[in-house]
Amino acid sequence: MKMTVYLAGEIHTNWRNELKEKVEALQLPLDFVGPMEDHERSDNIGEEILGSQPSSILKDASASSVNNLRTELLMKKSDLIIALFGEKYKQWNTAMDASAAVSLGKPLILIRPQELHHPLKELSRKANVTVESVNQALKVLSYIFD
Amino acid sequence: MKMTVYLAGEIHTNWRNELKEKVEALQLPLDFVGPMEDHERSDNIGEEILGSQPSSILKDASASSVNNLRTELLMKKSDLIIALFGEKYKQWNTAMDASAAVSLGKPLILIRPQELHHPLKELSRKANVTVESVNQALKVLSYIFD
Amino acid sequence: MKMTVYLAGEIHTNWRNELKEKVEALQLPLDFVGPMEDHERSDNIGEEILGSQPSSILKDASASSVNNLRTELLMKKSDLIIALFGEKYKQWNTAMDASAAVSLGKPLILIRPQELHHPLKELSRKANVTVESVNQALKVLSYIFD
Amino acid sequence: MKMTVYLAGEIHTNWRNELKEKVEALQLPLDFVGPMEDHERSDNIGEEILGSQPSSILKDASASSVNNLRTELLMKKSDLIIALFGEKYKQWNTAMDASAAVSLGKPLILIRPQELHHPLKELSRKANVTVESVNQALKVLSYIFD
Amino acid sequence: MKMTVYLAGEIHTNWRNELKEKVEALQLPLDFVGPMEDHERSDNIGEEILGSQPSSILKDASASSVNNLRTELLMKKSDLIIALFGEKYKQWNTAMDASAAVSLGKPLILIRPQELHHPLKELSRKANVTVESVNQALKVLSYIFD
Amino acid sequence: MKMTVYLAGEIHTNWRNELKEKVEALQLPLDFVGPMEDHERSDNIGEEILGSQPSSILKDASASSVNNLRTELLMKKSDLIIALFGEKYKQWNTAMDASAAVSLGKPLILIRPQELHHPLKELSRKANVTVESVNQALKVLSYIFD
Amino acid sequence: MKMTVYLAGEIHTNWRNELKEKVEALQLPLDFVGPMEDHERSDNIGEEILGSQPSSILKDASASSVNNLRTELLMKKSDLIIALFGEKYKQWNTAMDASAAVSLGKPLILIRPQELHHPLKELSRKANVTVESVNQALKVLSYIFD
Amino acid sequence: MKMTVYLAGEIHTNWRNELKEKVEALQLPLDFVGPMEDHERSDNIGEEILGSQPSSILKDASASSVNNLRTELLMKKSDLIIALFGEKYKQWNTAMDASAAVSLGKPLILIRPQELHHPLKELSRKANVTVESVNQALKVLSYIFD
Repeated sequence: MKMTVYLAGEIHTNWRNELKEKVEALQLPLDFVGPMEDHERSDNIGEEILGSQPSSILKDASASSVNNLRTELLMKKSDLIIALFGEKYKQWNTAMDASAAVSLGKPLILIRPQELHHPLKELSRKANVTVESVNQALKVLSYIFD
Repeated sequence: MKMTVYLAGEIHTNWRNELKEKVEALQLPLDFVGPMEDHERSDNIGEEILGSQPSSILKDASASSVNNLRTELLMKKSDLIIALFGEKYKQWNTAMDASAAVSLGKPLILIRPQELHHPLKELSRKANVTVESVNQALKVLSYIFD
Repeated sequence: MKMTVYLAGEIHTNWRNELKEKVEALQLPLDFVGPMEDHERSDNIGEEILGSQPSSILKDASASSVNNLRTELLMKKSDLIIALFGEKYKQWNTAMDASAAVSLGKPLILIRPQELHHPLKELSRKANVTVESVNQALKVLSYIFD
Repeated sequence: MKMTVYLAGEIHTNWRNELKEKVEALQLPLDFVGPMEDHERSDNIGEEILGSQPSSILKDASASSVNNLRTELLMKKSDLIIALFGEKYKQWNTAMDASAAVSLGKPLILIRPQELHHPLKELSRKANVTVESVNQALKVLSYIFD
Repeated sequence: MKMTVYLAGEIHTNWRNELKEKVEALQLPLDFVGPMEDHERSDNIGEEILGSQPSSILKDASASSVNNLRTELLMKKSDLIIALFGEKYKQWNTAMDASAAVSLGKPLILIRPQELHHPLKELSRKANVTVESVNQALKVLSYIFD
Repeated sequence: MKMTVYLAGEIHTNWRNELKEKVEALQLPLDFVGPMEDHERSDNIGEEILGSQPSSILKDASASSVNNLRTELLMKKSDLIIALFGEKYKQWNTAMDASAAVSLGKPLILIRPQELHHPLKELSRKANVTVESVNQALKVLSYIFD
Repeated sequence: MKMTVYLAGEIHTNWRNELKEKVEALQLPLDFVGPMEDHERSDNIGEEILGSQPSSILKDASASSVNNLRTELLMKKSDLIIALFGEKYKQWNTAMDASAAVSLGKPLILIRPQELHHPLKELSRKANVTVESVNQALKVLSYIFD
Repeated sequence: MKMTVYLAGEIHTNWRNELKEKVEALQLPLDFVGPMEDHERSDNIGEEILGSQPSSILKDASASSVNNLRTELLMKKSDLIIALFGEKYKQWNTAMDASAAVSLGKPLILIRPQELHHPLKELSRKANVTVESVNQALKVLSYIFD
């Protein structure tokens, strides 16, 4: 039984590759999808497709349309969502994607540093499982197939 | 991860083949389905199946039943809908299919010439992404797999 | 048992008032809602709320957002949709609203002149009932409570 | 036709009262619900109900359970969600509630200062309407009943 | 807590009135809706609305559209369905309505004479409760409020 | 794109094999499932599994449980339902299965002899397409893949 | 905003009345529904309606049909479920009802003595809030309206 | 047509292996999934992932989160649920999983010893089929493919 996992959240560290490599080492039957990880391209994708836009507002609007399409499409094809919060940035997209996952009936694993416990307490309670590291999330994934 | 795309809309130009060839050249993992593109056969399919009908109203009613079955079945098997409006014709079926896609939770890419911006503004706002050419839609498809 | 009916479609004739008055005369337990009928205000509502927009594209985008919110909200509160097509205009919003109604599981009565039979044959087949006049739609409404 | 509006978001300013008073002055048929606005009580509600907890983690877990129950229950009773982002705080609950609203098929009005345009661009694109002030949101509410 | 009950099935005996009178005598908080009970009018409703039809097939098609609209609309407003099979006629509409009720998540009480046990065994198993008389169905209704 | 078709209805003639052979000859990508076609076994399956039952009522109840499980499971795995009514028998299960299909959002092709037009008019109107022979149903299947 | 609460679980103590009285004293806008609390009548309801049954198995089967109908109907009309586990009995119906509530998207408050923590840990995690006494559940109800 | 079966319930006997071996001998196209069968590991999985917890309550809470995630994920991937009750233990998780299956629209086979008929009568009535042994459940599985 193969499953697909959507990796939501922070795109400034290497956590997705770390997880993928360890999953591969364990030979778990998992495919991974996720957002565009090249931040600049994600911000420019609207202009890349539609050409130069007359204002930064319109540039943002066109980029967000394409990014939302990508997220919606890939999330609907996924069985499980993992959302990782880092210590920096507002990360509203991560909160948005994690909450959409729960509302769509997709199980959710939340990864966040202990320091973020308080501001994420309601989202954590909505998640199926909350952990503090990629390694702990890996153990959850592994347990599903044991 | 293979996906299926339903190509709704105009059947008087060659846009479906254009898109399919470019997707193939890029080796994107996409299958395409869509309406009957032979307009005359689409209008006659009721009589082709049930035999000659006593009036043009009944001929139309029988044809529309079969066409709706085809559309409903293929759209439900699809992950994504692309709807193209041309500059001619009423194209109410295109509007109908695009709206059904959104209501069924299928992501929608709308292709329409800039001149149709005003009459299509509400439908455009319902679509995930609105573009003006097949090439731009291709870039959106490509971005999903980058 | 009170019901709410959303009256989609053409806003250039008086058909909504005609229907409401006849329903009132028959004392049917029906409430009516529908789109903004002042066409100019519907086109300007984005700027009315957000202030002057830098382009006609943005003016349209802002107006369509508000109009779609109104339609979605009122249609979800309704038990039944009546959509009327007139002989002029593209009327893509009417097709869009009628199709959304069907996809959301709301029963649909379609009113259209006989001349539009052919281009509306697929939408007509999706509707529960297709009639040619407001008076005929009234009879359908009346029959529900007999 | 009476409707219920859930007011998500920031609880450090007086925006809910401002909106309610203006809605009342306009005699719009709207009821309002929302989160516990007493921030301290919201943080302490778990201990208020279950008694003193052995750690701050458990205190938070118990509070978030009760707050999530309240939000879920009231949001499901609502027809429309308004979510306001202020300029301070992480506001992950606001993003979470706004996204849940969209996923549950509830129309969403987003209020945020223009400066937050970029980090909220994807959420803004998911909202039905995005505005910058309570007064603008009021105009949207008013338009629904015109 | 008021509930609405849709009374599907046979229209050649007086069972609906019998049930309504007994429910009224018991002062149970129930409203009743159901199909058009005047069989001839039910068969003619298409022509009553659209005028004389060119064939009996079209007469039937137009009548069934209106009858289906009525059934769908009233069944969606109902909390509970009671379907009664008599000993005569094919009664395919009764089977159709009872099955639609179950598929839509509406609880179903089936009334049928013991002789029909065998041909109705699968439908009976889908129903929540199967009884043999209107009086027994009345006792079920009464029990809900005890 | 492979699809699965559930063949509901009459089990006393050879229509399923006739359809399967013709579909195979046309190399359409279709799999077929359906009810137990051995009528006696279908009636006895409860006792076959649970042992002899104390009454014919209980024998029927146990058989219908297993038959309903089979139908529900296979219908949920199917993309399309074909229901055939013959000229004999009550065929309430066929009406029940056809109606369940429509309510579950599965497209439905109805096959029935012209003589049954009147008693099946409401079910026919709910079906996507109504035809009179297996050959006509075959043409509909074929058209989907043209 | 009035809400309805279904009180699932144990019927051998007086907890429902205790809760109702306290809610009334606080003037919370809540209605309560629940299962038949007369245990003997609940076990006999099948025979009360259908007459004496040939075996205890059939007596049980007929009673459970009516009890399930009642539960399903009332739970669907409710906004919130409270399920109480006592220290005795198997209470499988309580577990069944609590789980059905969660799966149907109804918020759930679980009341159970601390000693049952371990065997109820998975159900507790599915509930929105778990408390140990009726008074604590009352505080949760009260908080919703503060 | 391959199907997946979730085997809920008792983990102290060998019934899952017995069923799997017999299914394999019959070459039925079935895959099986289910809960963690190592009871101790199931109780410790929270600490295995998150490290030692400060109390048995927290140990249980963390374990139940992971177990619920596993159950939800695997059950959603399944076409059919089999739930087995043994004669010992409270088995609330079995009741919870069986009820969730029904509410999610998954067909359910219940296996229970005849002695448990009375306390399981409501759950039995919700199941599609109730049997008393693994062999009987095997016969049901086999019948689906005959």
